[in-house]
Amino acid sequence: MGSVSRRGLLAALGSGAVGAGLVGAGVVAAEASGRAAGSSADGGSASVVPFHGEHQAGIATDVQANLHFAAFDVTATSREELVSLLQDWTAAAVALTAGKEVGQGGASGGKPLAPPSDTGEAVDLHANRLTLTVGAGPSLFDDRFGLAPARPAALVDLPAFPADALVPERSGGDLCVQACADDPQVAVHAIRTLTRIAAGRAAVRWAQLGYGRAATVDPSAPTPRNLFGFKDGTANPAASDTKTLDEQVWVQAGDEQGSAAWVVGGSYLVARRIRMHIETWDRTSLQEQEQVIGRTKGTGAPLGHAGEHDAFDARTLPASSHVRLAHPSMNGGAQMLRRGYNFTDGTDGLGHLDAGLFFLAYQRDVRTAFIPVQTVLARQDALSEYLEHTASGVWAVFPGVPDGGYLGQQLLSA
Amino acid sequence: MGSVSRRGLLAALGSGAVGAGLVGAGVVAAEASGRAAGSSADGGSASVVPFHGEHQAGIATDVQANLHFAAFDVTATSREELVSLLQDWTAAAVALTAGKEVGQGGASGGKPLAPPSDTGEAVDLHANRLTLTVGAGPSLFDDRFGLAPARPAALVDLPAFPADALVPERSGGDLCVQACADDPQVAVHAIRTLTRIAAGRAAVRWAQLGYGRAATVDPSAPTPRNLFGFKDGTANPAASDTKTLDEQVWVQAGDEQGSAAWVVGGSYLVARRIRMHIETWDRTSLQEQEQVIGRTKGTGAPLGHAGEHDAFDARTLPASSHVRLAHPSMNGGAQMLRRGYNFTDGTDGLGHLDAGLFFLAYQRDVRTAFIPVQTVLARQDALSEYLEHTASGVWAVFPGVPDGGYLGQQLLSA
Repeated sequence: MGSVSRRGLLAALGSGAVGAGLVGAGVVAAEASGRAAGSSADGGSASVVPFHGEHQAGIATDVQANLHFAAFDVTATSREELVSLLQDWTAAAVALTAGKEVGQGGASGGKPLAPPSDTGEAVDLHANRLTLTVGAGPSLFDDRFGLAPARPAALVDLPAFPADALVPERSGGDLCVQACADDPQVAVHAIRTLTRIAAGRAAVRWAQLGYGRAATVDPSAPTPRNLFGFKDGTANPAASDTKTLDEQVWVQAGDEQGSAAWVVGGSYLVARRIRMHIETWDRTSLQEQEQVIGRTKGTGAPLGHAGEHDAFDARTLPASSHVRLAHPSMNGGAQMLRRGYNFTDGTDGLGHLDAGLFFLAYQRDVRTAFIPVQTVLARQDALSEYLEHTASGVWAVFPGVPDGGYLGQQLLSA
Repeated sequence: MGSVSRRGLLAALGSGAVGAGLVGAGVVAAEASGRAAGSSADGGSASVVPFHGEHQAGIATDVQANLHFAAFDVTATSREELVSLLQDWTAAAVALTAGKEVGQGGASGGKPLAPPSDTGEAVDLHANRLTLTVGAGPSLFDDRFGLAPARPAALVDLPAFPADALVPERSGGDLCVQACADDPQVAVHAIRTLTRIAAGRAAVRWAQLGYGRAATVDPSAPTPRNLFGFKDGTANPAASDTKTLDEQVWVQAGDEQGSAAWVVGGSYLVARRIRMHIETWDRTSLQEQEQVIGRTKGTGAPLGHAGEHDAFDARTLPASSHVRLAHPSMNGGAQMLRRGYNFTDGTDGLGHLDAGLFFLAYQRDVRTAFIPVQTVLARQDALSEYLEHTASGVWAVFPGVPDGGYLGQQLLSA
């Protein structure tokens, strides 16, 4: 079968019954050029999220099913090396997010005496809505690369919160990459590939895998549940709600001045690895669980209401309930775009699951969103008793990459 | 919408374009009774693998996309307690594999002052082809439960192999449970539920998550690739090849005598957590990689052949190649039914991925299958240089559970 007819087949699959349900705004059918035709079973997920645009993909993109997140320490010693790294990452990200192998000599067609340019484990898996989202942490703005004057005022170091149990070796990082896809192997391949490309210029500091459900792709799908069994994300802004995203997520012109203005069009990402004490929770009564959260467990409705999406006054919920304390109306209107994933990292050696929520939240300004909200939650939220924050990071997420540009160019070409 | 019409909707979805591709032998459409109707996006995977049968499900079942494997130490002190544990696990497994909540007071409909009987995080997620497969390790046949005489002769302790780097705390276990499903949260929920039910009678010793692809569901789907980028499983027996399964996988009448004959209809499972040294492999030339494996990287064809499934003489492959040394023709015809999953457990603290293959293989007799094959591989396989076995276990997998019976009843009611 020639490449043209293979593409025709894939296009046909993409417009079939499955594709019609899955292919939403901002998602186009994959051409899968450079790869063999895939199976009919995954034709609907063989889709590409465009890499280029005003904002990076992976933020307002409908949430994918799988996450591989990595934080990197930059080991490059010059600004030129850092630029070359981000340029190489950009070229790889363009290929990966299009469902193509990186480089010219991949699993098939490589030179026999050279290592394959692509490691090959994602061949046949298509793009699977892979997005790669890259940001710069506070530590990148030290004196190594002359970037101190360009550090945005909003890129503050997070304060210590009560009951934080952070592991320094898996917190922070000069750069972060959030890889999301509807196939875990596609996300893992992407992080592995960027790590390999970074050799000698940056090294993985820590990483986290997560899983969830691509529920937002289908507006009629149920809200996903966290590992406490409660619906989580009911009040999250919709990807289509551009007004809220402009107000709450994207950095706007005027937010930063002078050499820090590069961040306009970007966002700020806070990551927290939240270990959930599942065994303790599971011994708690249903009533107590619902009082702690502020919603009913079955339907997800706010307490005293019938439906998950019913309008409610947060002040009518229990004083120390999570939903009340985190509600925008109790926090000066602050909202974050949450993209958290559940994680299970086996057991902790004591027979307990090492599991929880890898919290990822995008926001226009951490000083008015995550920091004040978490300050309240850490002190008053009844849920905190069951949680332990074990990793933390904050990054200024680069604005989108125009055609021909590179990740972080607005920062590094200034 | 009433429950009848909801079921009608699901049935309609199950017979649509997606369902036709996904629903294979031994898989029936879910009724999703006891749960709310799910989204149309996952209608095709809302399927149930029957729990009861001659053999346990999860062995010859078409491989699901996700794995949560757990090994348990039994802490019960009497045979009666052990029986009650396995009976309770059976009741839970029947509910879980049918896509239902466990117990009578789950996320919805529970008693306010009692902990919910179901933890709730898999509500709305359907069965997703969940299978639970349970076995007994050599240590269960010590003097605690009077089972020493019933230990099958074939349930030998695995010998030490050259270059083993086993971590004792994540090896062995009195019982094992393999949970496989097409949604990771469904598999995690199942292991969590069985762990919770076991409280006071058994505790998780170690656990492993894995991911892969449900490729075998669609015979036209490409063979999945391991994290070295090579197709893995090309020569695996098909689930429909009952002749080979009887010869190589299921314990047959006469294989064991007397009080050990309970294992007839069961199988033996060997699990090995194989850390793959990915960064070293990635620096190896394409030619070297292909010589080490014995197949071409792109197509998966045996070296010197054009197609992945071409017939070949293993003796024509490089002397130390993996495919040659592992081939049945070089091992007295021994074959195993492999069900391995790729895993990525973050990084190892040195910037390297802690990733590899969680090898799961079912066989009729480890003395003529895994042990001799691994003895050869550990000594001669060129691939071994890139591998490190970090966890290991062997279990006698119980025969199938008849309606009204319980897991291990053939062993424990004798």
